[in-house]
Amino acid sequence: MSFATDIKRLSSSDDGFPQTLRQLLAFEASEDAAIDQSVVQILQAVKTRGDAAVLEYTQKFDRLGVDAVSALEIPTSELQAALASLPAERRQALEAAAARVRAYHEVQKRECGSAGFSYTEADGTVLGQKVTPLDRVGIYVPGGKAAYPSSVLMNAIPAKVAGVQEIIMVVPTPDGVRNPLVLAAAAIAGVDRVFTIGGAQAVGALAYGTESIPQVDKIVGPGNAYVANAKRRVFGTVGIDMIAGPSEILVLCDGTTDPDWVAMDLFSQAEHDELAQSILLCPNAEYLDQVHASIDKLITTMPRAEIIRTSLRDRGALILVRDMQEACDIANDIAAEHLEISAEEPQQWADQIRHAGAMFLGRYSSESLGDYCAGPNHVLPTSRTARFSSPLGVYDFQKRSSMIQVSEQGAQSLGKIAAELAYGEGLPAHARSAELRLK
Amino acid sequence: MSFATDIKRLSSSDDGFPQTLRQLLAFEASEDAAIDQSVVQILQAVKTRGDAAVLEYTQKFDRLGVDAVSALEIPTSELQAALASLPAERRQALEAAAARVRAYHEVQKRECGSAGFSYTEADGTVLGQKVTPLDRVGIYVPGGKAAYPSSVLMNAIPAKVAGVQEIIMVVPTPDGVRNPLVLAAAAIAGVDRVFTIGGAQAVGALAYGTESIPQVDKIVGPGNAYVANAKRRVFGTVGIDMIAGPSEILVLCDGTTDPDWVAMDLFSQAEHDELAQSILLCPNAEYLDQVHASIDKLITTMPRAEIIRTSLRDRGALILVRDMQEACDIANDIAAEHLEISAEEPQQWADQIRHAGAMFLGRYSSESLGDYCAGPNHVLPTSRTARFSSPLGVYDFQKRSSMIQVSEQGAQSLGKIAAELAYGEGLPAHARSAELRLK
Repeated sequence: MSFATDIKRLSSSDDGFPQTLRQLLAFEASEDAAIDQSVVQILQAVKTRGDAAVLEYTQKFDRLGVDAVSALEIPTSELQAALASLPAERRQALEAAAARVRAYHEVQKRECGSAGFSYTEADGTVLGQKVTPLDRVGIYVPGGKAAYPSSVLMNAIPAKVAGVQEIIMVVPTPDGVRNPLVLAAAAIAGVDRVFTIGGAQAVGALAYGTESIPQVDKIVGPGNAYVANAKRRVFGTVGIDMIAGPSEILVLCDGTTDPDWVAMDLFSQAEHDELAQSILLCPNAEYLDQVHASIDKLITTMPRAEIIRTSLRDRGALILVRDMQEACDIANDIAAEHLEISAEEPQQWADQIRHAGAMFLGRYSSESLGDYCAGPNHVLPTSRTARFSSPLGVYDFQKRSSMIQVSEQGAQSLGKIAAELAYGEGLPAHARSAELRLK
Repeated sequence: MSFATDIKRLSSSDDGFPQTLRQLLAFEASEDAAIDQSVVQILQAVKTRGDAAVLEYTQKFDRLGVDAVSALEIPTSELQAALASLPAERRQALEAAAARVRAYHEVQKRECGSAGFSYTEADGTVLGQKVTPLDRVGIYVPGGKAAYPSSVLMNAIPAKVAGVQEIIMVVPTPDGVRNPLVLAAAAIAGVDRVFTIGGAQAVGALAYGTESIPQVDKIVGPGNAYVANAKRRVFGTVGIDMIAGPSEILVLCDGTTDPDWVAMDLFSQAEHDELAQSILLCPNAEYLDQVHASIDKLITTMPRAEIIRTSLRDRGALILVRDMQEACDIANDIAAEHLEISAEEPQQWADQIRHAGAMFLGRYSSESLGDYCAGPNHVLPTSRTARFSSPLGVYDFQKRSSMIQVSEQGAQSLGKIAAELAYGEGLPAHARSAELRLK
């Protein structure tokens, strides 16, 4: 059979398949010395000159010539006006999505140990952990073509549910062009203040604070290479979320799902950008042909066909596997951001999966439902980082403090152990501090 | 009154106190271009040349001339032999500490949502989150003077409790000198493999893997400036813990604790190194004088007196506050790594604290007990990062995956919402993917 659309056709029994797969997955954000240097300068300027530097860079990069940072703040009334201006259907969809995302994260808050814990030992010593929300959080929202209101909801709502007191959003508006859907989403999500600034200068303003922009404790949200570089640099002064790579979907299919559905699911990832990655694993060679045929048939109907073609050609693959068990093993190696298990009785395969940002089980769970409104967060670990990191969640906007209340009796037994080890480590003041509490 | 020991005496009612406090707290790891460049080279070499590069750098920096990385691995039998060789008292202390740390982290595991969650909506849609341990973790243990067996316990035990399958420890042994207490701690903590490598080359080996050293999913543990720089650079390829700054203690005292005890607690931080920070807040001026007198009296008895003197002079402070409530407000601003509330009824003040790595309540809870054996982790956020981060814990060795199983009925209502929003964001394949599931 021959197909019109260029996408890699691989088999797990090919010679050198593990290496081929590794190459397919390989992605490294290019390190650009010019960006590096520029970001260092911008951060330094914002740190030392505050508002003045923010105004200069915003004039230079976004062509917004204003006299004061206050002129770059969008008042809450304007966010509400943007919400009121939406067509009814769109507003309802946004509000329904927000309500579902909020409901899920409220369950998550209850289930992720937000109450902390405390227990008392026999000698009266009390140990535990206290969980508290962050005070103030910054959300970076990209301007221009990648301006996604759904991202505003996904970043702001978990912070609100966690109990963060103040959410500051920054969004660049080159030439003053504002996206009403993004502003409406900010209103629905309960964002407290919005500044129309972007780039490394916005990251610097949030990390260090300026005369007009308050310092935050953590910065979340996606951005371009300058924003990612700046976030990496301010990490430690403030918290940051993961630095996101290109988006990915991995579909595990047993060959029982309508091939058109799977083809469209692959497109839904590929349409993001040329670097997005769409991979299908299936033990049925004939079914892979059917999906390939569906791709050929459907791609011509897609408005973003050129992006999809490039993404599928450069980074996509239809892979024949021996069986679904092998598909699960490969999926654990890929550790995909989005994993669809489009199969009969999907739970049996989900039980085998150790590494994935989000799992979509059964053929009705298209990734797009999760992207917008199923409830779980759509900010997910990319580029194999699901091996060690998690979806954005309420827990990202909380932190813990250990609680230690040693009783007089407890200080006797613990003091001897501590002193013995402290002397062993050559730290005599530690030892003496414990010994002073001995009777 | 005049005192022999040089330590800042401040009052919260001094003019410009907030600025003075800010300057006192200011600490920024120096960015050293030479270290930067060296680390880039080392990481690149290890990434491309694997074992060969690790051997070269280990020969160069640690003067260990061996032919193969296998000769740098310490077999388990040798860890056990190190444990067997310890004096009985020290071994018992180490085992008692490990047992308490394990017990605390087992409670933490139970209480931090490790079971995940799942709930079913009215239309049959199932949402939830699955929690899994990381597969393999690397622990960096510094060699030489800062070789702390307690750190081995504190880093390895939470990983074990989380269910991590394999723990790889790296520890440099310049000139082949091994620390038996560190190796014994590795045996007790259940470390699986130990390599005598260090520096950026060890971080690179763990992050990228070599022929002989397996790639890990996360690297934790303290190190020098090269190690910290390398960890920051490999962040994203693997997970890392926080980059630790100098250690800090903040004591809030109501004036009712033996001033010798408080003086020694301040010493126990100051003896770590010259950059360590010890601060006391108290509403009683006379009591501050008493503590200052205790410092004068006790410092002459301390083996590490010179380090303590420098640390207290450059970074320490005794601060008079209006009342304990103000002390709590200042403590929230400082967001200290270690916070001792040495007071009658300490819980009332602990309730006011939002930001601290660990709180030590009551006068018997010296920080040193927490450093070794109370149970909670001694790896804590420094340099005001307690505003947004947490003690090392079981949760650092777990990650979450969202679970989404949309029912056929659920796909009808969710599909309409998702399609509406996807069209709004200009992502038609997302919309079509949802619409294909509509009846």
